[in-house]
Amino acid sequence: MRTPVCERLGVEFPLFAFSHCRDVVAAVTNAGGFGVLGAVAYSPEQLDAELTWIDEQVGGRPYGVDVLVPGKVDAAALEGGHLMDFVPERHRDFVTHLMSKYQVGGSAQPMAATADSFGRRVTAAGASSLVDVALKHPIGLIASALGPPPPEMVAKAREAGVPVAALVGTVEHARRQVAAGADLIVAQGTEAGGHTGEISTMVLVPQVVDAVAPVPVLAAGGIASGRQMAAAMALGAQGVWCGSVWLTTEEAETAPAVKQKMLAASSLDTVRSRSRTGKPARQLRSAWTQEWDAAQESPGPLGMPLQMLIAEGAMARITTAAERGEPGALELANYFVGQVVGQLDQIKPARQVVYEMVSEFAEAVERLARLSE
Amino acid sequence: MRTPVCERLGVEFPLFAFSHCRDVVAAVTNAGGFGVLGAVAYSPEQLDAELTWIDEQVGGRPYGVDVLVPGKVDAAALEGGHLMDFVPERHRDFVTHLMSKYQVGGSAQPMAATADSFGRRVTAAGASSLVDVALKHPIGLIASALGPPPPEMVAKAREAGVPVAALVGTVEHARRQVAAGADLIVAQGTEAGGHTGEISTMVLVPQVVDAVAPVPVLAAGGIASGRQMAAAMALGAQGVWCGSVWLTTEEAETAPAVKQKMLAASSLDTVRSRSRTGKPARQLRSAWTQEWDAAQESPGPLGMPLQMLIAEGAMARITTAAERGEPGALELANYFVGQVVGQLDQIKPARQVVYEMVSEFAEAVERLARLSE
Repeated sequence: MRTPVCERLGVEFPLFAFSHCRDVVAAVTNAGGFGVLGAVAYSPEQLDAELTWIDEQVGGRPYGVDVLVPGKVDAAALEGGHLMDFVPERHRDFVTHLMSKYQVGGSAQPMAATADSFGRRVTAAGASSLVDVALKHPIGLIASALGPPPPEMVAKAREAGVPVAALVGTVEHARRQVAAGADLIVAQGTEAGGHTGEISTMVLVPQVVDAVAPVPVLAAGGIASGRQMAAAMALGAQGVWCGSVWLTTEEAETAPAVKQKMLAASSLDTVRSRSRTGKPARQLRSAWTQEWDAAQESPGPLGMPLQMLIAEGAMARITTAAERGEPGALELANYFVGQVVGQLDQIKPARQVVYEMVSEFAEAVERLARLSE
Repeated sequence: MRTPVCERLGVEFPLFAFSHCRDVVAAVTNAGGFGVLGAVAYSPEQLDAELTWIDEQVGGRPYGVDVLVPGKVDAAALEGGHLMDFVPERHRDFVTHLMSKYQVGGSAQPMAATADSFGRRVTAAGASSLVDVALKHPIGLIASALGPPPPEMVAKAREAGVPVAALVGTVEHARRQVAAGADLIVAQGTEAGGHTGEISTMVLVPQVVDAVAPVPVLAAGGIASGRQMAAAMALGAQGVWCGSVWLTTEEAETAPAVKQKMLAASSLDTVRSRSRTGKPARQLRSAWTQEWDAAQESPGPLGMPLQMLIAEGAMARITTAAERGEPGALELANYFVGQVVGQLDQIKPARQVVYEMVSEFAEAVERLARLSE
């Protein structure tokens, strides 16, 4: 299953694992795949510590870092003052109302203290400081999760000899990302978890492959097994970029109550909603998404990063309450995950997931080859 | 590319072509695929005539018929009286308003005359008379497009030795269809044109394959090229069921103005909307879908079959006006099509589409096999 991307990035299997958890990143890289750490939740200092830990674990094997660089953010949020000052009263009130309606225990959200630095990290300037930290480590890839990589990021990565990857949901965006300097395109279908577009992986990948050739393309969205990996590569992808499948691994830091929800969920139990980040992101359908998206009294989600501030603050409290078994909090709790959640019904080590995918990939390819005889 | 389904149905390539146009059905069957005629638009007499024509063209090669058997229809519509009597005044008024707003010429919709028989055909009783007609012809497959095949349909097909196929959008429906007697499951992803669910082909197909084994599964949704066919079969499907790709063939009866819209459309230009049939169906996004789904004054779509009555009557007039080049009618005009519409940019003979898919399939499988060396 070696493709040109494998040669370029020095990886055995073209299986990329996006995770916010350093243990998953290290485990996948050590199993022959390519771990990519999602950096958005970290301060520059924390990111440095996480990458140092990964460096110690992987013994020079390749891994990467993903930063969130939104193309457009709420303009007001970029001006001076505390970001929380820009959250309207009725949005704060709606969160208070939800906490009360669902009887979520615990003290008021602790977000106020950290909200500002958190929110700033999803602005271009904030992402830039994470890029600086990442490039001080021996990373093999830097990825831009939203919008074209800023010129400064591309220039710094080039200087460091690190390829730049960019996630896209349309052909138009893929062309724009290549023009902005992306060395590798991740074409992500609507079935993916997190920020995602409307076009399915099956439809998107071949169009992107044709549009940006010879730039290599990885497929993302709907891929959590070897058959799906083989399908993605039949479409012309040189590898796959998976996120959801790691959320139910042993190593994942997914809150146990949310992990249980994922193991129980079917593929119908996700929704693309703006209620957590301000941009459409696929996640478990829960009382949180229902209330924000459909309740009469909902003020509607704010843009990014403001919605992220109020949602992540509230979700921290909700998740803690869900861990205590509070029923209302369990109804509200959710997390970003793709439609493949319906396939995830067992907690496994990340290494085992890699080996099973590689082995099922080989079986699928052999089965296909026999059809052509 | 022969799979057990090929043996069972006596077909060379497991490429199924769903079309409302007899010319497409005959062309695909004669090229080695398996044409399936969508019967919903025909009266029993018309269907008989169409199938007689196909019989003469295909010289014993296999083809099939697809009927629309909705599991649930608007209960009121099943009681006595003319179906049109059940359409509320504000829905009629909204159609009149749209015709006026978009300055659609031509006389009031001619639907009233034919609406009743048309609407009745999408009830269980109506579908049954189409099944009787179909089984008098040497068909190789009968398919149920919505809901489990009724016991009577399964019994009649069994007696005639004709396998029954059923379209599904969830694992749960697949299990139910097999329990109801389906011999073949068509797992259709959300990217498909027409009535469709929420789960993507990439995610749905492997789950359905595992759930109903050893019952064979065809993949539908997002498949209009050989790479996509290879991907579907890597997922475990024994063949593919394609609809959209035939709409821009030379043989298709697609209205020329709508065909041009399809050739120009990108994969972002479709929407799942209830505005044409009363159930969520993917179609070109147009002023029609926008007005019904988002305009403040929209009364919201009715259920099936009532919405179908008003929509098809209005669409007949809109399409005729669009053919005259009326700009408002061109804005409103649309048709059912999947996200693959973004790949369709050239009018080709149906036979050429079959040959190109088969040839690209072989290339994709060879490319994959080389990766495993």
